[in-house]
Amino acid sequence: MNPKSDATLSLSKVTILVRVREGILDPQGQAVLQALHDMGENDLFSVRIGKLIEIYIPSSDTLESRLESWCRDLLSNPLVESYEIQSIKPVSHQPMSV
Amino acid sequence: MNPKSDATLSLSKVTILVRVREGILDPQGQAVLQALHDMGENDLFSVRIGKLIEIYIPSSDTLESRLESWCRDLLSNPLVESYEIQSIKPVSHQPMSV
Repeated sequence: MNPKSDATLSLSKVTILVRVREGILDPQGQAVLQALHDMGENDLFSVRIGKLIEIYIPSSDTLESRLESWCRDLLSNPLVESYEIQSIKPVSHQPMSV
Repeated sequence: MNPKSDATLSLSKVTILVRVREGILDPQGQAVLQALHDMGENDLFSVRIGKLIEIYIPSSDTLESRLESWCRDLLSNPLVESYEIQSIKPVSHQPMSV
């Protein structure tokens, strides 16, 4: 099945943010903080680096619960990360494939 | 200097999103797409994974131009990534240190 051939298909763009939990060491953020410090930028309090996940998927009534389950089971490690489904927006065009 | 001792300090929380450019292969996104496919989720069009960067820093008039320069020089690789300074918001509390 090629879903692109279905002209009536309604598509959603989902944006998910995954953050390292407070109190958990974030080595990537620490490295950026140190690099900025080495560039003479001394006034930063903190830098934390997480993941931005963008998904294009057909809209459906069950989408939000499916997303929750993916976030819990695959997209984040609940021990050290928290996730936020920031937005689910209808879109009219599909992203370019790679 | 301990900036935390300055009670008059106005702090900003900056959120920066870094995305792999369209047309550039995103192996991390491909891996997640494949994992979801293996779980029986066959209707996804695309999954792209980028970086969420959150910075706490004192507010200032020059903050935005400093951020632009950090994004260009350190936080993204302009050849294959694009960045977006999504928000600069005043905050009243400092994040927990790690």
